[in-house]
Amino acid sequence: MNQDYIIPNEWSIIEKGFNPDTVKASESLFSIGNGAMGQRANFEESYSGPTFQGSYIAGVYYPDKTRVGWWKNGYPEYFAKVLNAPNWIGINVTINDEKLDLHTCLEVNNFKRELNMKEGWLSRSFDATLQNGIKVNVYTQRFLSLEFDEVGAIKYSVTLVNGDATVEFSPYIDGGITNEDTNWDDQFWDILDVTQKEQQSFLQARTMKTNFCACTYMESLVFLDGKQQEISGVEKKSSNYASCSYKKGIKQGQTFAIHKFGGYVVDRNHDKLELVNVAKNVLKKATDIGFDGLLELQKKSWSRIWETADITIKGDVKAQQGIRFNIFQLNQTYLGTDARLNIGPKGFTGEKYGGSTYWDTEAYCIPFYMATKDQKVARKLLEYRYHHLDKAIENAEKLGFKNGAALYPMVTMNGEECHNEWEITFEEIHRNGAIAFAIYNYCRYTNDYNYIPEKGLEVLIGIAKFWHQRATYSTKKGKYVILGVTGPNEYENNVNNNWYTNYIARWCINYAIENIKRVAQEFNTDYQRISEKTTIDVNELEKWKEVADNMYFPYSEEHNVFLQQDGFLDKDLITVADLPQESRPINQHWSWDRILRSPFIKQADVLQGFYFFEDKFSEEDLERHFNFYEPFTVHESSLSPCVHSVQAAKLGKMDQAYRFYLRTSRLDLDDYNHEVHEGLHITSMAGTWMSIVEGFGGMRIIDGKLSFEPRIPKQWEAYSFKINFRNQILKINVTQNKTNFELINGDKISILVNGASVLVTPNNLVTV
Amino acid sequence: MNQDYIIPNEWSIIEKGFNPDTVKASESLFSIGNGAMGQRANFEESYSGPTFQGSYIAGVYYPDKTRVGWWKNGYPEYFAKVLNAPNWIGINVTINDEKLDLHTCLEVNNFKRELNMKEGWLSRSFDATLQNGIKVNVYTQRFLSLEFDEVGAIKYSVTLVNGDATVEFSPYIDGGITNEDTNWDDQFWDILDVTQKEQQSFLQARTMKTNFCACTYMESLVFLDGKQQEISGVEKKSSNYASCSYKKGIKQGQTFAIHKFGGYVVDRNHDKLELVNVAKNVLKKATDIGFDGLLELQKKSWSRIWETADITIKGDVKAQQGIRFNIFQLNQTYLGTDARLNIGPKGFTGEKYGGSTYWDTEAYCIPFYMATKDQKVARKLLEYRYHHLDKAIENAEKLGFKNGAALYPMVTMNGEECHNEWEITFEEIHRNGAIAFAIYNYCRYTNDYNYIPEKGLEVLIGIAKFWHQRATYSTKKGKYVILGVTGPNEYENNVNNNWYTNYIARWCINYAIENIKRVAQEFNTDYQRISEKTTIDVNELEKWKEVADNMYFPYSEEHNVFLQQDGFLDKDLITVADLPQESRPINQHWSWDRILRSPFIKQADVLQGFYFFEDKFSEEDLERHFNFYEPFTVHESSLSPCVHSVQAAKLGKMDQAYRFYLRTSRLDLDDYNHEVHEGLHITSMAGTWMSIVEGFGGMRIIDGKLSFEPRIPKQWEAYSFKINFRNQILKINVTQNKTNFELINGDKISILVNGASVLVTPNNLVTV
Repeated sequence: MNQDYIIPNEWSIIEKGFNPDTVKASESLFSIGNGAMGQRANFEESYSGPTFQGSYIAGVYYPDKTRVGWWKNGYPEYFAKVLNAPNWIGINVTINDEKLDLHTCLEVNNFKRELNMKEGWLSRSFDATLQNGIKVNVYTQRFLSLEFDEVGAIKYSVTLVNGDATVEFSPYIDGGITNEDTNWDDQFWDILDVTQKEQQSFLQARTMKTNFCACTYMESLVFLDGKQQEISGVEKKSSNYASCSYKKGIKQGQTFAIHKFGGYVVDRNHDKLELVNVAKNVLKKATDIGFDGLLELQKKSWSRIWETADITIKGDVKAQQGIRFNIFQLNQTYLGTDARLNIGPKGFTGEKYGGSTYWDTEAYCIPFYMATKDQKVARKLLEYRYHHLDKAIENAEKLGFKNGAALYPMVTMNGEECHNEWEITFEEIHRNGAIAFAIYNYCRYTNDYNYIPEKGLEVLIGIAKFWHQRATYSTKKGKYVILGVTGPNEYENNVNNNWYTNYIARWCINYAIENIKRVAQEFNTDYQRISEKTTIDVNELEKWKEVADNMYFPYSEEHNVFLQQDGFLDKDLITVADLPQESRPINQHWSWDRILRSPFIKQADVLQGFYFFEDKFSEEDLERHFNFYEPFTVHESSLSPCVHSVQAAKLGKMDQAYRFYLRTSRLDLDDYNHEVHEGLHITSMAGTWMSIVEGFGGMRIIDGKLSFEPRIPKQWEAYSFKINFRNQILKINVTQNKTNFELINGDKISILVNGASVLVTPNNLVTV
Repeated sequence: MNQDYIIPNEWSIIEKGFNPDTVKASESLFSIGNGAMGQRANFEESYSGPTFQGSYIAGVYYPDKTRVGWWKNGYPEYFAKVLNAPNWIGINVTINDEKLDLHTCLEVNNFKRELNMKEGWLSRSFDATLQNGIKVNVYTQRFLSLEFDEVGAIKYSVTLVNGDATVEFSPYIDGGITNEDTNWDDQFWDILDVTQKEQQSFLQARTMKTNFCACTYMESLVFLDGKQQEISGVEKKSSNYASCSYKKGIKQGQTFAIHKFGGYVVDRNHDKLELVNVAKNVLKKATDIGFDGLLELQKKSWSRIWETADITIKGDVKAQQGIRFNIFQLNQTYLGTDARLNIGPKGFTGEKYGGSTYWDTEAYCIPFYMATKDQKVARKLLEYRYHHLDKAIENAEKLGFKNGAALYPMVTMNGEECHNEWEITFEEIHRNGAIAFAIYNYCRYTNDYNYIPEKGLEVLIGIAKFWHQRATYSTKKGKYVILGVTGPNEYENNVNNNWYTNYIARWCINYAIENIKRVAQEFNTDYQRISEKTTIDVNELEKWKEVADNMYFPYSEEHNVFLQQDGFLDKDLITVADLPQESRPINQHWSWDRILRSPFIKQADVLQGFYFFEDKFSEEDLERHFNFYEPFTVHESSLSPCVHSVQAAKLGKMDQAYRFYLRTSRLDLDDYNHEVHEGLHITSMAGTWMSIVEGFGGMRIIDGKLSFEPRIPKQWEAYSFKINFRNQILKINVTQNKTNFELINGDKISILVNGASVLVTPNNLVTV
């Protein structure tokens, strides 16, 4: 743990006291989003201290040209960069002509920030003494509307504490922004036009190269002691900036407030030529409803989300805060309403991990969205990859594969690979496995088998072809080997026979064959018709099978475990316990070669395979492998502790499971990996949900039925969660000595509890 | 082979006929340099077709900021970039106001380029018909003076063929240049001042970040039919450009000519504030001596170089041209006069391989410079690394090593690492071995053992410490292993136990211990005094020895060969013979992962070890390893064929040896690797010299004596070379049935020929 300043609270993230050193961390932690846009919790008024400005529009990116020392054939031409979009939240505030700036104020007291997760808003309040001696009390509140996802609203009010003064609000929109990760303050937006009319401002801008057009807009209303004022704002504009100032002399004790409405409308959703008109309509709606009306709608929207998604924990406020923070951020990032979007690892909270979509979605996020939303959302996420199949085939061709073999990109915005480090782009090929696994996982959970003949099978075929071609035969071993890969543990590069990769490769081939046959049989379809994008013939299947049946798996007789890769035991096998605290995280202290030759594991690798394919291994197998690998695991990927938490719970190692749970759920709140200032780890938050539902709750799907083996950490009195399973909603409440099952929505459901069949019907609390 | 347009000639590189497609290749091949500056063979007059402009100043570079997807701890902040310097060769030529431009002329005939290697100049002649119908005959000649290394001289003459016309020469200097390898046409020079006075022009510029100041200058004289004209030039300048135009109406058959003198003076050699004055003095000297006088001096300078360095080959013009081209380019690049400089892999012929110094210098270039120049030159090259020892220790510290361990950079300009690909920077650590080996090689050749107590030992100690710390103990193998390296064969990354690396690591440790003991004994020095930059104690030596004595070497019983690295035999062992021609070079056709998992070898790796440590292995060992590895070797590094050539000759495989010789000597002339347009492969040219002297000549140093085992390819009548051995110069002439030895300079020398002792005295041709 690296920080401990967030006040524990069941429903809110709270910071008290102003500390310039935590500004960047808090900008990440208090981020808000609505699936279509999002922003870091930057101050509205100007702030001259260290800050990381960020406002992002879903699906809007820039292709940064690949720059490497030595070009490698097959590199993508560009690396997608998440773009900081024009600022619409800014409100310059002056009191008697002095700019309000918390970095230069004489004194700041009673500073409080709150991110109210139940209702979906961010607030801030403080008392400040300016250099001119004037004291003010400030309260701000802001949210991005879920109901109207192009609208954001801000209330900003200033109360004079020690005398009269002139207060001026200058709300603005600003296109003169840049990315923090740029080296040379490059501009990525061409500003096309700035217009102002009747107190409304519009800034039209186009991203360079990708040509996304966005209209950033704003309109403001002002109030004195709650009463709307008819002050005509003074408009100002430049080539990339527009402001509109409202000035008023007010008396001690009076409150001058501004309600600012702003946001983006984008040509991804509207005709490019109509953007200003669309923005005007949006503004009309927003100002008609008003700040308070929009806020009420916001509360209702969030209430609907929490209805199914909430997890309660009794007796452990920090744990409760952690899980709600995770669920809240996931819903701020992706709501499943736009099939072109996906779940970026940093959501709308930072610039890192440039691209939008990683294997995180398939490996970690799909279970969360399947169980807490309508199953169409998960289907949409699968379809996202289906739509990218052509590009995945193209990508594989660039690497020398043929005949319709598909390699999905490691990082993508539009289906094209947009990451350019060879050990990742070319070698972290296990991602292909997760995409196939997600199809299996979806069908297992939803029983929507139709997805496979409709769309899934083509993806499975492309992936199976890839694995078949990627394996090579080792005469020495008399087996098929997969050489030169990076496994889920990215602290190993270009290794041979990564067990996880070989295992999922074999599984993919077998699963594709199984489904080709099933679809041919059940849907009376010949092989040619099955696949429009790739062709297969029966002989090919035989060849696939030859590879799958003779795949090599590295194994240690001595330790009786599968080895993460060839040669793992040649390492100097020091454990995490031997690592001095000052060396951690090792990725911030050790050079890459040192990390690579160490035995330290960034994230579950062999154990990730045991997580996906748990039913293929005995509990003894799992325990042996867990005991072998856990001591080497540094969990420096956010995606790691959740898997270990689920497995520790299964093995009855509840203390460990609880520790891992805290680590995953409070990874960002407590900043375990010393990097929260860069943004939040969104995709791994779905892992936190897994830790509770699959770990403590022991939820699995067994033969088409929900199954539970509930456990509870000794630190908790009780916890509860809900599961949307095939359109029935089941609520599970676990206490230290019993578990209640309640069917919220549905007719009846037969489940397994600790292996025994239990029937749950509506209005009938079943206690086990 | 990729091209075949260079006319075979013993002393010149000649191109006939104008072909826009070979302009970039010829710009590389006809490059000129004088150790202090160099330039691609760009046309003086303007050319609107595809061209790669380049003029470079020794030691002047720019630190390009490292940009990578995911930052890795220990990366250097920058990547050194060779900078294109202001253009001083430009002469715009207009005939009746039409610009002469070979790309737009109606006709170009009798185009001929010649790089005269014997005398060190470049010429070009052609007949051109302009769009206005005027026909001209043009002759240009240019060189960079060896005598005055800040001066370049150009003669440019235009003869009217079909009528009278006005001819205008506008010689210029231009700071508005950029690098071809830049993405965004970034400028790397700040232009400080442009001044013109009395027909002289000066452009002062400073490199960004590194703040090198250079004054580019010019002055011109004009001639009509050989008679100097008193035409006052019309001066023009802008913020980064200066020209001075000379215009004259001339008659059919008359020749209007300009002699332009220009170049750079740099604050690496002069007071920054005096640069213009220095340039004026240089210009005074140059114009006093005049073009023809400077050319005479140039011929004399080159004649002195060839006196010792020349190699003759009879009966094979292409082979003769090849070796002279190699010797010529090496001398254009590095003359051993400036201890701060080194030998860049592309010399002054292109931008690639950003930095200046690689292990190429120690592994390939030192033997050439030792044998063809005074041995002080080789000592200077060793001292270059000695001066960088502190930086090498710093570099090792960044990677977690301590106690004075030194890791020399992979690429450097000033001792700091300036390459930023982890598999190279952090893992291609064998470079450290070559630096130690060069010290051994130097002492063996020159018998100047004093270098070791004076300077070499500190370097050896730093390197031995590094290897000791870098090896780890494998409990499984019961041996010390070196994990995660890139060997000389860069088509393998992050491999374990690269045989070459492990071997040279052991050798370095043993050699350091041997010399610590010898120096302590012979120079009566205690351990502390030996090393000022690092400290050692006796216990440490024991620990080093423990590692050296128990180093692991991968070995195949089946094939009875050392394996390039762990797991080599798991590959699909297809050979180069199985590779379709259209896949080659594989680095231009295969993605990196495919290259890595293939068995293909970029350059000698195990065989490089056999080359360095030939005396540790039997001829049978060598033959077995050569036969095993050669079939997998694609020789896509310029540094590869020479080693195979030397070894093939030793093994009596003369056909192969000859083929490799042609490949190394004509690598650029015939463009084997499809990349000559980017520049020449300078450092590997020293390998060509090795192929003859060590390969065919069989030269070795055995027990302090020169030893020869001469062989001759059946394609040659005879060949000869000279060797400067400990200040005596021996000439060796080999024909199909005998070898003559002649002592050119020295008292007497006892040598070994095919194992037998032979005494050579002056004026006494010894025939064997």
